[in-house]
Amino acid sequence: MSATISPLAPKKYPRMPDIEGVRMATAEAGIKYRGRTDVLVMAFEEGTEVAGVFTRSKCPSAPVDFCRANLPGGKARLLVVNSGNANAFTGKKGRESTAQTGKAGAEAAGCAANEVFLASTGVIGEPLDAGRFSHLLAGMVRDARPGLWQEAASAIMTTDTYPKVATATARLGDTEVTINGIAKGAGMIAPDMATMLSFVATDAPIAAPVLQALLSGGVGKTFNAITVDSDTSTSDTLLMFATGAAEKRGAPRVDSLMDPRLSGFKRALGKLLKSLALQVVRDGEGARKQVEITVTGAKSSRSAKRVALSIANSPLVKTAVAGEDANWGRVVMAVGKAGEPADRDSLSIWFGDNRLAHKGERDPDYSEEATSAYMKRDEIRIVADLGIGSGKATVWTCDLTKAYVEINGDYRS
Amino acid sequence: MSATISPLAPKKYPRMPDIEGVRMATAEAGIKYRGRTDVLVMAFEEGTEVAGVFTRSKCPSAPVDFCRANLPGGKARLLVVNSGNANAFTGKKGRESTAQTGKAGAEAAGCAANEVFLASTGVIGEPLDAGRFSHLLAGMVRDARPGLWQEAASAIMTTDTYPKVATATARLGDTEVTINGIAKGAGMIAPDMATMLSFVATDAPIAAPVLQALLSGGVGKTFNAITVDSDTSTSDTLLMFATGAAEKRGAPRVDSLMDPRLSGFKRALGKLLKSLALQVVRDGEGARKQVEITVTGAKSSRSAKRVALSIANSPLVKTAVAGEDANWGRVVMAVGKAGEPADRDSLSIWFGDNRLAHKGERDPDYSEEATSAYMKRDEIRIVADLGIGSGKATVWTCDLTKAYVEINGDYRS
Repeated sequence: MSATISPLAPKKYPRMPDIEGVRMATAEAGIKYRGRTDVLVMAFEEGTEVAGVFTRSKCPSAPVDFCRANLPGGKARLLVVNSGNANAFTGKKGRESTAQTGKAGAEAAGCAANEVFLASTGVIGEPLDAGRFSHLLAGMVRDARPGLWQEAASAIMTTDTYPKVATATARLGDTEVTINGIAKGAGMIAPDMATMLSFVATDAPIAAPVLQALLSGGVGKTFNAITVDSDTSTSDTLLMFATGAAEKRGAPRVDSLMDPRLSGFKRALGKLLKSLALQVVRDGEGARKQVEITVTGAKSSRSAKRVALSIANSPLVKTAVAGEDANWGRVVMAVGKAGEPADRDSLSIWFGDNRLAHKGERDPDYSEEATSAYMKRDEIRIVADLGIGSGKATVWTCDLTKAYVEINGDYRS
Repeated sequence: MSATISPLAPKKYPRMPDIEGVRMATAEAGIKYRGRTDVLVMAFEEGTEVAGVFTRSKCPSAPVDFCRANLPGGKARLLVVNSGNANAFTGKKGRESTAQTGKAGAEAAGCAANEVFLASTGVIGEPLDAGRFSHLLAGMVRDARPGLWQEAASAIMTTDTYPKVATATARLGDTEVTINGIAKGAGMIAPDMATMLSFVATDAPIAAPVLQALLSGGVGKTFNAITVDSDTSTSDTLLMFATGAAEKRGAPRVDSLMDPRLSGFKRALGKLLKSLALQVVRDGEGARKQVEITVTGAKSSRSAKRVALSIANSPLVKTAVAGEDANWGRVVMAVGKAGEPADRDSLSIWFGDNRLAHKGERDPDYSEEATSAYMKRDEIRIVADLGIGSGKATVWTCDLTKAYVEINGDYRS
C-alpha cells in the first residue's frame, strides 16, 4: 500500500451489491504490514461451484499448488487470502503452511478439506507462518457478512495504491444475476495467466465445468491481455465462485457451455474481468498513463497479440510514453523484434487519431504539434497496422516511470 | 553522448595498434549533434574480405538492407558510418539516401558499388539527408590514416558515455596477426543479433566465407549474450574486415573453416567480441552495475540461455540490483516465467558466492549481511542452477536505474 495514490485511480467506486451466499471478513494479522488488514476470508454457502486459472510459472507458489489440487472437486466453501507474504519458493515449510491453513479453514467452515482455497501475495522466499492467522479463521467465518467487497479488496493489496472492485449484472433466463469481483496488482504483472490475485463471485447457478470454461475463455482478452512489467508472478490466481443462490429466484441451472441462456452472462463476465484487469494496469507500479495497444492487419489474432505485447513490454516504448514523446520509431522497433510475420513497408502507426507512419515511412501529413498535445493525455491509444492479414488484438499496459524503479529498488527491504 | 560518464567505463584504454590496410577519417557533418564528429570512414586496401551479422528485426534499417545486398560479394573497400540518424523506417527516401551515399563512397574509394558498406545509428523514422556528408567522402578517403581507432569509436556514439575499443593478437601459422574492433551501445540493446554497431578489422588473410563462419559463430556467446533493455534495434550491424596484409609477413591464407591454424585466431576473436559486448553493457543507459547471469543444470544450453535472458531482461531483477537488494525471489520468478523446463524444487540460486536458495527454498545458512555487502559491488554475478540437466549459458546485462527512464523519456525531443 503506497502513500501516493495512482493518478489513474477510479474517481468513484461502484456500489457493490451483495451476492447471496457470499460472506466476508478481514483481519489485521500483522504478517508484514502494520495498521492495516492483511487477511481476507470469503465464506460460501454449501453447493458453491468453483473455477480457477493460475500462473503458468514453473515456480508456482504453495497456495497455487494447493488450489490446483482442490479445483477438480469443483466445490468451494472457503477462500483464505493473505497479503504481505506470497508463500512462494518456501519448499516443505510452504506446504506445511498451506496444509495448516487449509485444515484450520475446513474446521472453521465445517467443510471438506478440498473445499478450501488459498492465495497469498507479497514477498517471495520468506516462510509464511500460518500460525499468525490460522487461529483467527474460526472467528472470521463466524462473523463474516455480506457487503464487505471494498474492505476485501483492501485487505489483499500490496504495492497497490487503491482497492479494485467491479460489479456487473446479467439476465439468466428471466432472472437477473449479479457478478462481483476484486483484484490486486501492481507489479510482477504479465499476461501469462490470470494476473496476480482476483476473486469473482456470482449468485448464478452455473456448474463448475461450465464456470471453468467461461473463466478460461474470459481471461484471454482481459487479464491475459495486460502487462505492467512483463514479469509473470509465481502466484497469479483468478478464482470464481458461483453460489447458485439465484436459482431460488428462478434462474435456470446451467450445466452446459452450449446453453444459449449463457450469452448475457458471458458478456457481463467479460466486461467485469476487463474492468478489473484495467484497474490493475492503471495501478501499475509508478504508472501515470494507461496505454492501449491495438495491432491490426497481422497474420492471425495470435500473432497480433504477440506483436502487441512486444510493443507493450518494450521499456523504450513505455519510457517514451512516460516522457510524453510520440516516439513511433520505437513502435517500429518493437514490431520488428517481435519475431512475428511483419513487413516494414506495409506498416502504419497511429497515436490516437494521429497517423504518424504509413506504409513504411513517416506520414507526410503528420503533425508533431497535434501528436504532442495528444501525448499529454492520461490514456494513450497506439495502433499498429501490419498490413499483411486480418489478425487483430488489443492489450493494455502503463508507462514506465522513475517511480517504478524507485518502488522496486527497495520493495523487499 | 552524455555529460555523465558511466561509472563502469574502462579505467584506461588499450593502445590500439595499426591494422595494415585500414585507414580511417572522421568528420563533423552536423547531422544531428553539434560540436562533435558524426561521420566515420574506414578505407580498406584492395582485396579486403568482409563478413557481417545483422539485426533479425522485421523492420531493418535501410543501411542494413544495403549491407545485406552487398555482403555476398565478399569484398570491401569502404565503410561509411553516421551517428544521429538511423535511416530506419524511412521508406523510399531511406533507399535513396543509402544509394546516394553508396555511389559517393564508391567514387571516393575508386571501387565497385558492392564494395561499400554503410551503417547509421540514431533516431528512427527521420529521413537521412545524405547530402549532409556524401560530399565529404572523397576528402575523407584521401586523408584517411591508420591509428584513429579511438576517434572512430567516438564518431559513432549516440547515448554512449564512452567510446568502445578492443584489440587482440593471435598467431596464424608462425605470424602474429592483429584484430581491432570498435562498438557503440547504449540503449535498444537486446541479444537478437549483433547488437547495435560494431566494426572489427584484422590483417589476417582469411577468405570471406571463413570470416563469416567465424563471425556468426562468435556472436552467440558475446554480442548475442548481452541485453540492456530487451529491445532489439532495427540497425544492429557487426561487420568484420580482413585486409590480408599479414600474408606479406608470412601469415598463411586461410580458405577453410577446418584449417587447424585458425584455432588461435578464433579464440582471440571471441575474446575481442566479448570485450566489446561487455563494454556495451557497461555503458547501458543509466547503468551503474554490470550483472553476469549464469544458468547451469538446464535441459540444454539453448534452454539455459533462454532462462538466463529471462532473468537478465526482468525489470524486477534489474531494479533490485539497482537498489542493491539481493532479491533472489525475483530470480525465482524469472526462472518460472521463462517458459523453459524447470523444477522449482531443484532450483538453487547464488549471488556471488552466497547461496541464497537451495532445492526449492531459502538456504538456511544464508547470510543477509554478507549478501548485502556483496550487492554493493559494481559487478554482480548471479548463478541459477536448475538441477535438471547439464545445459549451461552465461549472459550479461546491467541494472535498471531511474537514469534509464530519464534518458529514454526525452531522448528524441
